[in-house]
Amino acid sequence: MLSGSQIPKRQTVEVSLGDRSYPIEIGTDWIEQFCDTIAGVLGDLSHALVITDAAVETPWAMKVATGLAKMNTTGGDSVRVNLLAVPSGETSKSLTQLDTLWQWMLESSTDRRSVVIAVGGGVIGDLAGFAAASFTRGIRFVQIPTTLLAMVDSSVGGKTGINLPTAKNMVGAFWQPAAVLIDTTVMSTLPDRSYISGLAEVVKYGVIDDAPFFEWLELNASKLIERDDEAVRYAIAQSCRSKANVVGEDERETSGRRAILNYGHTFAHAIEATAGYGEVLHGEAVAIGMQMAANLSIELKLCDPDLLQRQTALLKACQLPTTYAAADVNAMLPVMKRDKKVSHGNLRFVLPERIGSVMLLGEIEGSGVIHAIEACR
Amino acid sequence: MLSGSQIPKRQTVEVSLGDRSYPIEIGTDWIEQFCDTIAGVLGDLSHALVITDAAVETPWAMKVATGLAKMNTTGGDSVRVNLLAVPSGETSKSLTQLDTLWQWMLESSTDRRSVVIAVGGGVIGDLAGFAAASFTRGIRFVQIPTTLLAMVDSSVGGKTGINLPTAKNMVGAFWQPAAVLIDTTVMSTLPDRSYISGLAEVVKYGVIDDAPFFEWLELNASKLIERDDEAVRYAIAQSCRSKANVVGEDERETSGRRAILNYGHTFAHAIEATAGYGEVLHGEAVAIGMQMAANLSIELKLCDPDLLQRQTALLKACQLPTTYAAADVNAMLPVMKRDKKVSHGNLRFVLPERIGSVMLLGEIEGSGVIHAIEACR
Repeated sequence: MLSGSQIPKRQTVEVSLGDRSYPIEIGTDWIEQFCDTIAGVLGDLSHALVITDAAVETPWAMKVATGLAKMNTTGGDSVRVNLLAVPSGETSKSLTQLDTLWQWMLESSTDRRSVVIAVGGGVIGDLAGFAAASFTRGIRFVQIPTTLLAMVDSSVGGKTGINLPTAKNMVGAFWQPAAVLIDTTVMSTLPDRSYISGLAEVVKYGVIDDAPFFEWLELNASKLIERDDEAVRYAIAQSCRSKANVVGEDERETSGRRAILNYGHTFAHAIEATAGYGEVLHGEAVAIGMQMAANLSIELKLCDPDLLQRQTALLKACQLPTTYAAADVNAMLPVMKRDKKVSHGNLRFVLPERIGSVMLLGEIEGSGVIHAIEACR
Repeated sequence: MLSGSQIPKRQTVEVSLGDRSYPIEIGTDWIEQFCDTIAGVLGDLSHALVITDAAVETPWAMKVATGLAKMNTTGGDSVRVNLLAVPSGETSKSLTQLDTLWQWMLESSTDRRSVVIAVGGGVIGDLAGFAAASFTRGIRFVQIPTTLLAMVDSSVGGKTGINLPTAKNMVGAFWQPAAVLIDTTVMSTLPDRSYISGLAEVVKYGVIDDAPFFEWLELNASKLIERDDEAVRYAIAQSCRSKANVVGEDERETSGRRAILNYGHTFAHAIEATAGYGEVLHGEAVAIGMQMAANLSIELKLCDPDLLQRQTALLKACQLPTTYAAADVNAMLPVMKRDKKVSHGNLRFVLPERIGSVMLLGEIEGSGVIHAIEACR
């Protein structure tokens, strides 16, 4: 376990996927060097499409776009740069917005050597990533996450997509980025509630994969709440490392291994859907969902009640919700049965056995699920 | 070169793509055995989504759907089957239609073990294939082509997608089918003009890849016009073999090898776009486009005029057009510059050197292209 002075200022976590491998570069106050890194990773760069969230167009996306426009192609011409800002919020992960992106890419004379640069949170990464995956059947893209949630989760692993009106993330593609560039400094413009929400996914990695990291989190939660640079970098790097390992073993979610990343998420998606998208932040829903999953695990006698106590204490130390008074069992269950992780109509859950280890369990009865939800009201 | 009695009644052409490899099964009057073949290839089968063209819903799609509904899952339940007919024509390759498919798949409780069965021509294969590629980020699909064009070209190789209002095939995915099942009998309901149009792609394989096959076509064009079963099977198998080889070498069109399949197609897409989708059939446009490309090759002194003469004679023997009086150079050129095979705004063409061999040439001047178009008016 590293103490502050041992945490490196810049580090690289590699996602190993054969010819689709890519680096996650993590540092503080280095956004000015992003353009050189992008050019280096891509090899050639002549046309960049910067797609961003209206909330971070200034200063972050503009900084990246301005830097790119100052660069030259290998042929000596200026790099062509187009920038499009998308309205903030989950409602932008829609077919309408995707169509707008496609039309804009066409009008911007996008070809197969162009690159999409996604600057924003999970909504932008998912939307811009799917636009990149589908335009001319796939062009390269780079993720520049600006929220903690995107840094530790959605920007890594190649899941892209949009929502259908009644089903989250229902269409999309597995499409790996060419690089993920993380500067913790960009979170200076991130509201506290969003930052805190991202910590739920950080806690998740401790529970599903990394007991020593869970212990580090128990000791350092207050530093994370204060947004201490070194603690934040360490938490991001450890989270990315866990995610990269899992994704490297099961890129397309076929073996079941990748499913462990969905700890708490089947409940969380049902919470988000029944609350109306955006009412409860994703990370907040995940925190509550992990509590429901831990309760279900205890009910099924798969883990000790102590696990739930430690998880509850850590989530509280991270200022995350641990209960959800508005939970509506009758509304949530049908949503869960429609979840795309459901196989042949069979409800499956990721359930903790002990801190650092989870299992995937199918054929779970509705009554147990209902009790688990009710235990968190 | 095989004579009639040596042509096998059933044959398999393998598309070799590592863990994405699949068989193309070609035969006559064997559609009743398709369901067993599908179950065998997939290993498990519990839910099938049959997507078809309204023109072939009866009898072909119904035959397949009825057969599937009579089957049992490994668990002993009946296989669940949903069927959706899409209006005929290129205009169905639209975002609106894709959205309709996604909603229908959601309402049909589609999950990651479901399979899409595309029964129809290129429009259905491309549309249903992209729906399969994108729903829950990818489910399996099977191609059952019912047009000659789809049998020899679009059903093989994994290109799926839809049109944007002003750009053909501009968005989509590379998504390989689990199998391609071809029964020449289904062409009994195919109008002559559509069948003849498909022969253009057959001729294309002779020019780009297979001189002995080109010679066989010169000798057997009349048998193909008469739709002689054995000749048709041989032409399909040879075409699929060429396509499978090229796709196996360059699945995602990155090395330039796969680009040879676009012989005549840059011109053809411009003809189709300026004529309005559907006015000129795709194969007809390809026939004219190959003539334009051969003219351009002669103008650039890359091939002998004899090649154009043999190509013209064979296309005529196949009752295909070899000129296009309505060609509008001023309208076609801007479309060609927007073609997604254009790299960094640089016009590239597939040009024949001799029968059986083509080359890819970039940096071609507009004046040569204009002459080549005008030579075919």
